Amino acid sequence: MFTFKVDEEIELQLFQLKDCKELYRMVDTNRSHLREWLGWVDDMTSPYQYETIIPVWLKQFADNNGFNTGIRYQGELVGSIGFHYIDWRNRHTTIGYYLAKNAVGKGIMTRSVRALLDYAFYELGLNRVEIRCGEYNLKSRAIPERLGFTIEGRIRDGEALYNNFHDLIVYGMLTREWNNRTAYKPY
Amino acid sequence: MFTFKVDEEIELQLFQLKDCKELYRMVDTNRSHLREWLGWVDDMTSPYQYETIIPVWLKQFADNNGFNTGIRYQGELVGSIGFHYIDWRNRHTTIGYYLAKNAVGKGIMTRSVRALLDYAFYELGLNRVEIRCGEYNLKSRAIPERLGFTIEGRIRDGEALYNNFHDLIVYGMLTREWNNRTAYKPY
Amino acid sequence: MFTFKVDEEIELQLFQLKDCKELYRMVDTNRSHLREWLGWVDDMTSPYQYETIIPVWLKQFADNNGFNTGIRYQGELVGSIGFHYIDWRNRHTTIGYYLAKNAVGKGIMTRSVRALLDYAFYELGLNRVEIRCGEYNLKSRAIPERLGFTIEGRIRDGEALYNNFHDLIVYGMLTREWNNRTAYKPY
Amino acid sequence: MFTFKVDEEIELQLFQLKDCKELYRMVDTNRSHLREWLGWVDDMTSPYQYETIIPVWLKQFADNNGFNTGIRYQGELVGSIGFHYIDWRNRHTTIGYYLAKNAVGKGIMTRSVRALLDYAFYELGLNRVEIRCGEYNLKSRAIPERLGFTIEGRIRDGEALYNNFHDLIVYGMLTREWNNRTAYKPY
Amino acid sequence: MFTFKVDEEIELQLFQLKDCKELYRMVDTNRSHLREWLGWVDDMTSPYQYETIIPVWLKQFADNNGFNTGIRYQGELVGSIGFHYIDWRNRHTTIGYYLAKNAVGKGIMTRSVRALLDYAFYELGLNRVEIRCGEYNLKSRAIPERLGFTIEGRIRDGEALYNNFHDLIVYGMLTREWNNRTAYKPY
Amino acid sequence: MFTFKVDEEIELQLFQLKDCKELYRMVDTNRSHLREWLGWVDDMTSPYQYETIIPVWLKQFADNNGFNTGIRYQGELVGSIGFHYIDWRNRHTTIGYYLAKNAVGKGIMTRSVRALLDYAFYELGLNRVEIRCGEYNLKSRAIPERLGFTIEGRIRDGEALYNNFHDLIVYGMLTREWNNRTAYKPY
Repeated sequence: MFTFKVDEEIELQLFQLKDCKELYRMVDTNRSHLREWLGWVDDMTSPYQYETIIPVWLKQFADNNGFNTGIRYQGELVGSIGFHYIDWRNRHTTIGYYLAKNAVGKGIMTRSVRALLDYAFYELGLNRVEIRCGEYNLKSRAIPERLGFTIEGRIRDGEALYNNFHDLIVYGMLTREWNNRTAYKPY
Repeated sequence: MFTFKVDEEIELQLFQLKDCKELYRMVDTNRSHLREWLGWVDDMTSPYQYETIIPVWLKQFADNNGFNTGIRYQGELVGSIGFHYIDWRNRHTTIGYYLAKNAVGKGIMTRSVRALLDYAFYELGLNRVEIRCGEYNLKSRAIPERLGFTIEGRIRDGEALYNNFHDLIVYGMLTREWNNRTAYKPY
Repeated sequence: MFTFKVDEEIELQLFQLKDCKELYRMVDTNRSHLREWLGWVDDMTSPYQYETIIPVWLKQFADNNGFNTGIRYQGELVGSIGFHYIDWRNRHTTIGYYLAKNAVGKGIMTRSVRALLDYAFYELGLNRVEIRCGEYNLKSRAIPERLGFTIEGRIRDGEALYNNFHDLIVYGMLTREWNNRTAYKPY
Repeated sequence: MFTFKVDEEIELQLFQLKDCKELYRMVDTNRSHLREWLGWVDDMTSPYQYETIIPVWLKQFADNNGFNTGIRYQGELVGSIGFHYIDWRNRHTTIGYYLAKNAVGKGIMTRSVRALLDYAFYELGLNRVEIRCGEYNLKSRAIPERLGFTIEGRIRDGEALYNNFHDLIVYGMLTREWNNRTAYKPY
Repeated sequence: MFTFKVDEEIELQLFQLKDCKELYRMVDTNRSHLREWLGWVDDMTSPYQYETIIPVWLKQFADNNGFNTGIRYQGELVGSIGFHYIDWRNRHTTIGYYLAKNAVGKGIMTRSVRALLDYAFYELGLNRVEIRCGEYNLKSRAIPERLGFTIEGRIRDGEALYNNFHDLIVYGMLTREWNNRTAYKPY
Repeated sequence: MFTFKVDEEIELQLFQLKDCKELYRMVDTNRSHLREWLGWVDDMTSPYQYETIIPVWLKQFADNNGFNTGIRYQGELVGSIGFHYIDWRNRHTTIGYYLAKNAVGKGIMTRSVRALLDYAFYELGLNRVEIRCGEYNLKSRAIPERLGFTIEGRIRDGEALYNNFHDLIVYGMLTREWNNRTAYKPY
């Protein structure tokens, strides 16, 4: 119901209880695609699990500590994006996201992240936004690279994925850089 | 940030902490107008009070028990509307609202309530929506009357307003009525 | 243990954990009678459910937000009555009640409600007490009518009862009316 | 409102928010009398403190962990009595009490404790009730002695009273003893 | 990890989640020995129960209201000791403890209690420490007697043990006595 | 009271309420030294603030989500060290620390971190430990460098310090590296 409009095609929608089944269906039909880089996919075995999870996400939003949204492309739920938390003392947040397989390659995520950067820097007054991607998750890494983020490091063994660890590449964007960006190519 | 789009001119926006000052300013510049029918207006003496209130509203939303939004007309905050609570057992809710003085007479509230009725009946699956208006608050009463609500009763002394009680007129709309409505005139 | 004395025959007793079995037994032996107008009867399938519910009722009392009592007639548990909540801002409450089949027709509920009206108006300083009855629940409606309540409206589809909705008749009593009541006939 | 009837003259009433002022007044007019044996008397400097304390007492009752009541003698608030807690595993509780100066010497406390013993043993099924009195608080000690309690020990320095410690005499009554008691002399 | 050092052989360790299995194993291999005087032994049927209990103990410590530790003798977990609560108003606490069968007779508990007395009196500034032992639990009673505690009473039926009650002997030690103790014989 | 022993000279002690004054005194006498790299120093203006903070730290420990300790060198409180949180899914934590001025240069922190690495990898079974230092905080950076951590990145504007941002250098140590470390030079 409540959405953040990215452009004419894309909206980011706060998940509500009524969205449990739709969200589960998207995850369930994209299991092999999503589990390649998301450790929690195998844990999701029923839409009813989201009846517990969605209120936690909304509580996070109520606490002014980030949020989690569904990405709607031409009305269809095709992914998720959000701020993991907000570190108000250091004016910093981290963006996480994933996309259904059939939605890849349309610039959806790049446009969504771009909109959230505007929101983070100009609405919330944050100074820094971070994105962390698995080293070999090239599609994910393409997003911050396309938007002009700077690679700041490689967190070795930063994430566990089905009993293996893999490295995370840290990308950072600062408010002064976003102000001065010269180009943006959606895809 | 997160909004429910009513039409090209009107959006309903979930209040967030960052909106404290803007919300207070609207109330503060409409005191004499609003306090005629709203008992809490005199209690609001500082924007910082909303730092406590807004998280309560968002927590209500996280609990799937209604919400409170700001009405934006052509981007400007001109009022508030929400579901006071949701009675899931009886599939029922109550809508409350108010408008800044300069926004009256443009059909803003009628269009907003109409959109929330669609949401209540078709998204949430509720069966009944109620609006209660002060007996002599004719501008407020015009909204449900214009939308085809039925007068169901008069709650005598239903509301305290600065040490006086006044009667509340109860308006009801049922899902089967909304399905069959024949006409709608915004204003 | 803790009771509100109505008269020589009737006491209203705050439910405590030790009353779980007795309360369940009363409900269980009155199922067909009670479920005609109470939507929760079929949900009660074990006395142990009351081990969760009774602390919630007592917590409500501790929060100064109403209470729920058992009606004892000559010592026997024959029904329940309480204030659903207390709206302190508007100095208003709503009374709910039910009676076991074998206790009907003795004026028990009329006398109990009368005592709670005295308590609401003279001890708590409330201004208004409401009772809502199913339109065709004539025995229930007889209580407020006998005590001089005013019919204030009909809430259409106000309550769900086993997948049907039925209308609720709203009865109201104001403190100034209770002060001036001329007559009272228990039965 | 909710009372436990001791006899024709005495009732034990659960304190509610509406009793704050009356309770404070009793304490305030008995300061020199009460502070001799009660360490908290000097801390009570305003009736508004009871707006915090009374809900805590009621919450304790809701948790099935004891209660605190006002003693009404011929309708007047003259003291307080309660179960400090209930140790359900060991089926044990402790009674605490105090009386206003002008109510001393009428058997009020003896009768109240006797009623609570009946309640503890026969309603709650406890096995043991304890009373602890300051060694030199002879009026307090007279209560359990009159009712046939057994002295079980002396807790040295058991209680702090305005920077001094004094010994507590432990009195115990068991359910089998209460069943077999031969006599009772109110005063 | 975090330990209170008693002497070269004995440490008291705050239980953490990682200790669940080790703690359960000690209890499980000492069932017949421990259940003679501990009522909860039969309730422990799985190490996973400690995943709930240990956080409660740590929360108690965080609330400055006592703690529960494992006794390690030469590194091996051989028992448990703690402060049941701390009554800050009366500057008083109670020590509880138990020992695995094979650890009895080495002075472990006497030395541990002695160290906790130093801590209670000299670090926390308490005035009184109490130990309660089953009347016929002679090994347990030997600890306070060896350390010079005073017998203060016998709480009749003070504790339930598998459907029987037994008397508890109350031992007390005051700070002024601990200051003046003349002798200490570990075993 | 409860300590983690590092070596004969150094202990890490869980802060308790009784330590408020000692902790405040250490911070207060090291203000100019500490505020160079710690953003919260100016916020601490009274030992009573720690009465709120220390229970939060202990609650964190009770939640199995890290801890905060005081470093005692030859018994004296000279600094603080802890795990900021524990990411159990990814088996990862971050160490934070600071030292009083007069304790610098004795290898205290290097030895403390080394001990916590052993604890993290061998007791808790974590896979990765991170330390983040201000780019120009060379004394702080010397600790992970001496212990063989790997520089993994530079988080630009990672931390706010009195209205400026500075970069953070990320150091990482993995369990397999710690197993194979060849040398350690305390200082």
